[in-house]
Amino acid sequence: MTYPALASIRQQLAFLAELDRLKSVVRQSSLIDRSRKENSAEHSWHLAMFALVLADSAPGVDALHAVKLLLIHDIVEIDAGDAPIHVAGKDKAALEQAEQQAAKRIFGLLPAEQGKELLTLWTEFEEAQTPAARFAKALDRLQPLFLNTLTSGGTWTENGVTEQQVMERYGPTIKAGSPLLWHEASRLVQQHFAGRASETAL
Amino acid sequence: MTYPALASIRQQLAFLAELDRLKSVVRQSSLIDRSRKENSAEHSWHLAMFALVLADSAPGVDALHAVKLLLIHDIVEIDAGDAPIHVAGKDKAALEQAEQQAAKRIFGLLPAEQGKELLTLWTEFEEAQTPAARFAKALDRLQPLFLNTLTSGGTWTENGVTEQQVMERYGPTIKAGSPLLWHEASRLVQQHFAGRASETAL
Repeated sequence: MTYPALASIRQQLAFLAELDRLKSVVRQSSLIDRSRKENSAEHSWHLAMFALVLADSAPGVDALHAVKLLLIHDIVEIDAGDAPIHVAGKDKAALEQAEQQAAKRIFGLLPAEQGKELLTLWTEFEEAQTPAARFAKALDRLQPLFLNTLTSGGTWTENGVTEQQVMERYGPTIKAGSPLLWHEASRLVQQHFAGRASETAL
Repeated sequence: MTYPALASIRQQLAFLAELDRLKSVVRQSSLIDRSRKENSAEHSWHLAMFALVLADSAPGVDALHAVKLLLIHDIVEIDAGDAPIHVAGKDKAALEQAEQQAAKRIFGLLPAEQGKELLTLWTEFEEAQTPAARFAKALDRLQPLFLNTLTSGGTWTENGVTEQQVMERYGPTIKAGSPLLWHEASRLVQQHFAGRASETAL
């Protein structure tokens, strides 16, 4: 796989300049020190570190492939914005269409072959049919769960979300990627809703 | 390489919580839209994307290994802060000592074997003796150079840095990682100092 030198590099740099905009997409979760909301670029870095560090929690999974998936999984938000955890029906279809169009436009900035490769990786993440994609999806749920338990409930408290709703919204995805991580995550959730601050448990 | 389940996961989560602080380490470069300064966490994500996308500019280099190096290369800044591009003499020695202590403390939060692995990766980046580390270092210089050319000179304009100084401060490191990238980067620098906005050249 080679891309004829300079013309390709200029396309690649145009794509990398476009990516800068992901630093301005604001998510719902706060930083642990609660100074501000997290953005999707730093979230993606944090998730890539989750994949590197927690690789042993998903035996047999290619952790570096999961890292790649996580680095690119939110790029479509540059056009489509950050989606709340639960979107259903018509809204879900509209969101999926917006994300598909975003993927086409943004990955389309790259040399054709490379753009296709990144689109394939993004689709792999979305479809969550491979072990690496399931692990990546699990971490994308685990990270905000973890941040919430470290910030007095974070978005759960803000939105009046119950323990049962947390279990239902986060459980299946995390468990599908790593039963071991769900074992620990569900303990943190129970501990939070029992009113014992998890800050002290680390 | 296995880490006995839950006790390890708790150490790993404590490390991942600590990493959240990198999102509050502010760098000198601005975002391309100039809305604010970049932080070291989102910078690390951007660099990892540079490595994935520009891999063909450094033939034979293990791009995913470079991604790993870039994901962790700034973690020491949680304790030691972001260092300006040129530090010399006594200041340099003091900074290196602070970074060594930071690496020891932060990677020391992990299970011992894994902490040693990450420390080894960080040292590989710092020493820049492997092709992947040289490529990673090149990208760590290329990214702020590129952001500066897209923001009317950015930190160069703020600090009155000349074209010759840019060539001397960025050139050797970028060239050592990828002569091809330096060919393009030096063109962007010349274009900037000739007063032709590179925004229009992409």
